[in-house]
Amino acid sequence: VGRIGLFGAMFARGGAANAVDDRSWLAAMLDVEAALARVCARHDLCPVEAAEAITDATADVSRFDIDAIGREAGQTGTPVLALVRALRAAVGDEYAAFVHLGATSQDIVDTAAMLVARRALEPILADAALAADACATLAIEHRETVMVGRTLLQPALPTTFGLRVAGWMVGLDETRATLRAVREHQLAVQLGGGVGTLAAFGDKGLAIEADLASELELPEPTLPWHTIRNRPAALAGALGAMSGVLSKIAGDVVLLTQGEVGELREGGGAGRGASSAMPQKRNPVAAVMATACGRRVPGLVAGLLGAMAQELERAAGAWQSEAATMSELLRVVGAQVAWVRDLLENLDVDVERMRANIDAAGELLMAESVVTALMPHVGLVQARALVDGAVARVKEGDVTLGTALRSNAEAVDALGADGITAALAPDEYLGVAGELIDRALAAHRAAAV
Amino acid sequence: VGRIGLFGAMFARGGAANAVDDRSWLAAMLDVEAALARVCARHDLCPVEAAEAITDATADVSRFDIDAIGREAGQTGTPVLALVRALRAAVGDEYAAFVHLGATSQDIVDTAAMLVARRALEPILADAALAADACATLAIEHRETVMVGRTLLQPALPTTFGLRVAGWMVGLDETRATLRAVREHQLAVQLGGGVGTLAAFGDKGLAIEADLASELELPEPTLPWHTIRNRPAALAGALGAMSGVLSKIAGDVVLLTQGEVGELREGGGAGRGASSAMPQKRNPVAAVMATACGRRVPGLVAGLLGAMAQELERAAGAWQSEAATMSELLRVVGAQVAWVRDLLENLDVDVERMRANIDAAGELLMAESVVTALMPHVGLVQARALVDGAVARVKEGDVTLGTALRSNAEAVDALGADGITAALAPDEYLGVAGELIDRALAAHRAAAV
Amino acid sequence: VGRIGLFGAMFARGGAANAVDDRSWLAAMLDVEAALARVCARHDLCPVEAAEAITDATADVSRFDIDAIGREAGQTGTPVLALVRALRAAVGDEYAAFVHLGATSQDIVDTAAMLVARRALEPILADAALAADACATLAIEHRETVMVGRTLLQPALPTTFGLRVAGWMVGLDETRATLRAVREHQLAVQLGGGVGTLAAFGDKGLAIEADLASELELPEPTLPWHTIRNRPAALAGALGAMSGVLSKIAGDVVLLTQGEVGELREGGGAGRGASSAMPQKRNPVAAVMATACGRRVPGLVAGLLGAMAQELERAAGAWQSEAATMSELLRVVGAQVAWVRDLLENLDVDVERMRANIDAAGELLMAESVVTALMPHVGLVQARALVDGAVARVKEGDVTLGTALRSNAEAVDALGADGITAALAPDEYLGVAGELIDRALAAHRAAAV
Amino acid sequence: VGRIGLFGAMFARGGAANAVDDRSWLAAMLDVEAALARVCARHDLCPVEAAEAITDATADVSRFDIDAIGREAGQTGTPVLALVRALRAAVGDEYAAFVHLGATSQDIVDTAAMLVARRALEPILADAALAADACATLAIEHRETVMVGRTLLQPALPTTFGLRVAGWMVGLDETRATLRAVREHQLAVQLGGGVGTLAAFGDKGLAIEADLASELELPEPTLPWHTIRNRPAALAGALGAMSGVLSKIAGDVVLLTQGEVGELREGGGAGRGASSAMPQKRNPVAAVMATACGRRVPGLVAGLLGAMAQELERAAGAWQSEAATMSELLRVVGAQVAWVRDLLENLDVDVERMRANIDAAGELLMAESVVTALMPHVGLVQARALVDGAVARVKEGDVTLGTALRSNAEAVDALGADGITAALAPDEYLGVAGELIDRALAAHRAAAV
Repeated sequence: VGRIGLFGAMFARGGAANAVDDRSWLAAMLDVEAALARVCARHDLCPVEAAEAITDATADVSRFDIDAIGREAGQTGTPVLALVRALRAAVGDEYAAFVHLGATSQDIVDTAAMLVARRALEPILADAALAADACATLAIEHRETVMVGRTLLQPALPTTFGLRVAGWMVGLDETRATLRAVREHQLAVQLGGGVGTLAAFGDKGLAIEADLASELELPEPTLPWHTIRNRPAALAGALGAMSGVLSKIAGDVVLLTQGEVGELREGGGAGRGASSAMPQKRNPVAAVMATACGRRVPGLVAGLLGAMAQELERAAGAWQSEAATMSELLRVVGAQVAWVRDLLENLDVDVERMRANIDAAGELLMAESVVTALMPHVGLVQARALVDGAVARVKEGDVTLGTALRSNAEAVDALGADGITAALAPDEYLGVAGELIDRALAAHRAAAV
Repeated sequence: VGRIGLFGAMFARGGAANAVDDRSWLAAMLDVEAALARVCARHDLCPVEAAEAITDATADVSRFDIDAIGREAGQTGTPVLALVRALRAAVGDEYAAFVHLGATSQDIVDTAAMLVARRALEPILADAALAADACATLAIEHRETVMVGRTLLQPALPTTFGLRVAGWMVGLDETRATLRAVREHQLAVQLGGGVGTLAAFGDKGLAIEADLASELELPEPTLPWHTIRNRPAALAGALGAMSGVLSKIAGDVVLLTQGEVGELREGGGAGRGASSAMPQKRNPVAAVMATACGRRVPGLVAGLLGAMAQELERAAGAWQSEAATMSELLRVVGAQVAWVRDLLENLDVDVERMRANIDAAGELLMAESVVTALMPHVGLVQARALVDGAVARVKEGDVTLGTALRSNAEAVDALGADGITAALAPDEYLGVAGELIDRALAAHRAAAV
Repeated sequence: VGRIGLFGAMFARGGAANAVDDRSWLAAMLDVEAALARVCARHDLCPVEAAEAITDATADVSRFDIDAIGREAGQTGTPVLALVRALRAAVGDEYAAFVHLGATSQDIVDTAAMLVARRALEPILADAALAADACATLAIEHRETVMVGRTLLQPALPTTFGLRVAGWMVGLDETRATLRAVREHQLAVQLGGGVGTLAAFGDKGLAIEADLASELELPEPTLPWHTIRNRPAALAGALGAMSGVLSKIAGDVVLLTQGEVGELREGGGAGRGASSAMPQKRNPVAAVMATACGRRVPGLVAGLLGAMAQELERAAGAWQSEAATMSELLRVVGAQVAWVRDLLENLDVDVERMRANIDAAGELLMAESVVTALMPHVGLVQARALVDGAVARVKEGDVTLGTALRSNAEAVDALGADGITAALAPDEYLGVAGELIDRALAAHRAAAV
Repeated sequence: VGRIGLFGAMFARGGAANAVDDRSWLAAMLDVEAALARVCARHDLCPVEAAEAITDATADVSRFDIDAIGREAGQTGTPVLALVRALRAAVGDEYAAFVHLGATSQDIVDTAAMLVARRALEPILADAALAADACATLAIEHRETVMVGRTLLQPALPTTFGLRVAGWMVGLDETRATLRAVREHQLAVQLGGGVGTLAAFGDKGLAIEADLASELELPEPTLPWHTIRNRPAALAGALGAMSGVLSKIAGDVVLLTQGEVGELREGGGAGRGASSAMPQKRNPVAAVMATACGRRVPGLVAGLLGAMAQELERAAGAWQSEAATMSELLRVVGAQVAWVRDLLENLDVDVERMRANIDAAGELLMAESVVTALMPHVGLVQARALVDGAVARVKEGDVTLGTALRSNAEAVDALGADGITAALAPDEYLGVAGELIDRALAAHRAAAV
């Protein structure tokens, strides 16, 4: 099951952490060696019995001593030599020679990396889909829940909580689609041999590479990509974009759970969000931890992009930096999406507080609405001037915007008392919020197919 | 036109620099205001004459005082207010009120940003296509040019210059495809009004947004994306991936132009690469400058990813940081691709030096080849042991690998003298290099359609 | 003077923008050439008249055509060759040969970069000092102004606005001190000649380097640092740290100006913070723009750190990337500190709203205070259990914490009614806030000397 | 002990990895709790026996279940609550209440982080000192070893290997000094209680904080720095700068070990640098791994700088991201410096190859030297023109620079045959390389005191 560690349940949440740990990397490298042996057997480069023996030997990862392999990696700069030696010992003398036929170390590590990434993306994509589903549920439930829309953190205009949540959902759905496309098309097999010519396979190189791809259910690249690294970069970019959306969601929840706002509260059961010193506190744990995860992501993406400039046929350092960064990126985004899914599936929405905050913001929130209402009657420039004047009166004294307008002859002429009242009603100035929500939900349903 | 500046021809090369300068940003914002007016006219929110007057007023960017607008932006945090005021003045009293109908500042800036990005991508994609074409020409010409393949910068095995260049081409073609897809699908119109409800348009919001998208030939998003920023992130990721490939190409050229290697030389005419103090020098300018551009990119991408966590209905800072970073990213990647195109179109390949370096690397380069040849006869383990022994003899003294092998009875038994000679011939150990080049060229031709 | 540009007053605020523009870079390079000539004259490598002619020719930057130099830089990868040619032309045939004696291009650019940095640091440090002074004024004025302390954005305990501001001040003062130390010790002269041996000066190299340092009032390094780049890295790190503090200040102001919090408001005069669509809005412009600036900084610092790995005697790309990144970093941090100074010098503090928010947070804010008061009487564990029980009652129903405690016999026994009241008084649970402010002010005064 | 892991000996080399692992973090947190108890006892807030019991209970880290604490951290967002509960259980009922008196969770984590950093810096600084010592040894040994100086990777002028190594040493010594200063002055104690007022300690807060600092031998800050994060930023900046120097050293070694250059070779014993497929290879493992470590650093530094903008009295996410990033940064820089120390202590220098490369570069390497020699006779402009002409002749045909010069009457007039020969001697054009090495060694000895 894997270690949790001191900060573990914070950054190792979700299924991705296990999928990128040492044991999973080792399993992936063994899977590649076994698949390579089977393909070589199919092409008469190795006896079928050898391929079977190799496949059997790789079945139980726990037979291999991770620390011993790691120690030897310190001599050679790669764990593959020690792994091959250990696998040959496990296979026995008869078939040892058929382990690692025709491959270079990087073939094994890169293909294993693609398997690790594909496996780690499963829980990430699943959690992201469930997080989007939770948004859909909230968007449907709160399609008509009016709340203060805030720009630059200032009350701006009325909106609905449904529309806010629909925005989160669209961000999740669109970055999920990109990440799924990366999983399908970019996580390609790597097989090139020492310098990418597949020379050790004679004239069978292309066929063996194609079969290895199909054996591992990975796409086949146009060329070996030992030092052409747009594939890891595409993965990093897609994870970075999803992480940014997750950080946006978490950040909104933190803001809306503030004591003075109080429109949302994290659920999640007793003990969640307790404080060591302050008995009254119930901190927003999931949103805070998702934010913490998100803070770490841009630097990790930059690390992978900065490692793309790899020298000639194999890089002297940049490539060797990738595995650790990619693992960390998958782990952190995996934890982040698990936190956000938890957050969204357990979110308490305080509809009354949303209404109370609308009321507290007052009629000033409707200033643009009044301009819009006046415009057909007096033109935009005069409408804005009239409302600017009324707003100035509100800010100077105790008068409300409604009172200020009702005492203005031009406004009354244009709209009448009822028209002024209508223009000041938050529920009547929501534009196409409902239609937008419906459109987002339709896109969400289409994405689920 | 456009400023060059002191370091200008270094970082402002290519067409992207002009496409992201202040004048182009201003033109794009004016284009958005004009298109919005025309759409409003179509929906009877504004007289056709007003839309025409606004369109006319925006035609000449030089009528607007960029510095004055910038100065006022310092009071409001956005150039849009000052721009709207200036545009209203240009349009005249009669139609002034129909400028900027129903939009919020961010609608204008975001849509303009997408126009700026689309326009800057044109020269970037064109230069990238020409750079890939130059690779294709080199790959065809050097399909059979044998050179030393180097891993970790050590001589490893023979390869061909054609395969090296085909790798560059595939990297360019694949990142071009991603960037083209971003241009088609991600650079969407932005129209949401103050909080994304399109409230100022009443029930016409969706229709107006759709028409504005079509007027500007931009995709229509599912929802306004004021604070859901996967679209700029997708652009950043695609530019970052292309930049990494460009840096790889430039880095390879720098390494292969080293005095001690000498296999490539930058062309580009007299004066290129001169030194202020050392008369004999001919520095690799384009490769160096492309490398310099590439160094700046990961941090810029991280800047855009780090700005994705935007608050509620409009961000208080993160959004405002995007335009400068995106402009710089487009400018720098634009300069980088222009340098790399120049580099590839003017590259001098020294085929004789490549052969001389193969000869200098000596028969040791063929050690894996000998193992491969011996394997069917004595098995991999014994083959490796035999070659390890021969290599050790070479490293100890003056003997060549061929001599060491020919004095080894087991090797001679297995391969015969001719077999040893064949196993030591670099031209005979190129695997499927040629087929891989052909495959890459076919993919390149398909990408061009 | 200097250009403002469309987004100019936003990112080009403060004096640093001009100090890093093309004209200032050109002036700095000319200053280096002139100083070098004077030093050479002192060492009899050049006639005094030549040094005077060169010094005269460099006095007027506008004589030099920046765009022409930039265009030529595109051929050589450095503006220095074109600059030297132009300077020789300006000096005339007789003395032309004494321009740029013994130096390599990088000597000129690096030393100029240090001059540019030193000049740009002047307004940055001055603005930072004034921002800290503004904090000192606020801290003194609000030493006793009680406000809600918020952790994880939740009401936690009472604090004072004076202590909050004192924290800002300490952050400014400590990062100012680091930046000042960088200016004094790290911005060293660069003079090494082609490969750092100063060979063109024969045996006079050390003396000339020392004199050039003293002529330009820059420190003398132990060795030429052409490819040992801890000096630019130190500058970047110090700017990054100051920027982080500035972002913290700006972020706090954004949060405290929220509509629902309302404890602070940006001043800055009429028109500041207006909205294109919403008449009632008064957006926090300076805090938002300072936040925007801060978002761009970590990626720029990473860019300079990532450029430190420079090859052998002169880098092929990494070095060439530094000047643009360093200029941008100085410009952006310069703008950020100018915005924060403006923000702090014009900050409206709403003391009544702070008190109202304390009242609205209610007695729950004092839960820890009650635990602290009870502890000597009943022990920590029982005290916490007692308060937890009272807090639970408050959360269940309408009772206040005071009422819940007063109806608890153990609490009344321990504290008495008066003790309970005292434990619930925010003004009585401020610990050593006042002493801490005094300590911070003392440190601020000491820093000013 | 401690885990190595699959990639372990690559990235977990050196002592820092253990110093930042979960066990060390736990030990550090326990050290803080114990020290706090002892200080509270000194101030009569807790019985001496309780402080002793707490100190005893913290002595054996293995009593605490790291995974159980980690699991609970997932509920509260911090490991401190679970740790306090476990420590109270370990202490027993009588003294449980005196655990964690007056502190907030962040006080414990931040102070522990400073202890962790201080402990991890010990092996880092020790390895850096030994690496610098190894440079000193090499610089002394190779003070006169002439080699090709290369700029932009092109042969430029002669230099000495001693000067190259002295540059590495100065970079190490200067960044060591900065890192030592950070260790002395920036790693301060954190004690502020819930909102930084130390309220739970009544009027004893300042005294307790001072005593805690002295108990843990950490500096005392002016104010609690819960959300003023220049201290972690200073640590990150100093580590980033040292890492950049280490990457420069490793990069130079990679370049100088290239097959075609061959001036350096990594030592380190049999098996080091073997290849899975190519028998002849001896890869530069330490230099490659040090480069790999260095690639990861700028993104991690950016992560810590980007986390500085922390909200109000405790951040909602940014702070929580710091511990993981800081640990990774210490681990990676620790591994990097261990690799570089290994590299430098086992470096094979091929003096003959250096001379052979000088010879192969030919007399063209001395072009600037000839200009310098001619200048006093014919002036710089004419000297450059004369040498440019001779260089052109060399590039056109088979003639050497010496032959070209000796056939030029003006050159012969100016220098004589002997003068031409002298100007073409690499050993005579080394400027003050020796004096610079001596200066660097003197600075190194001074730094060791």
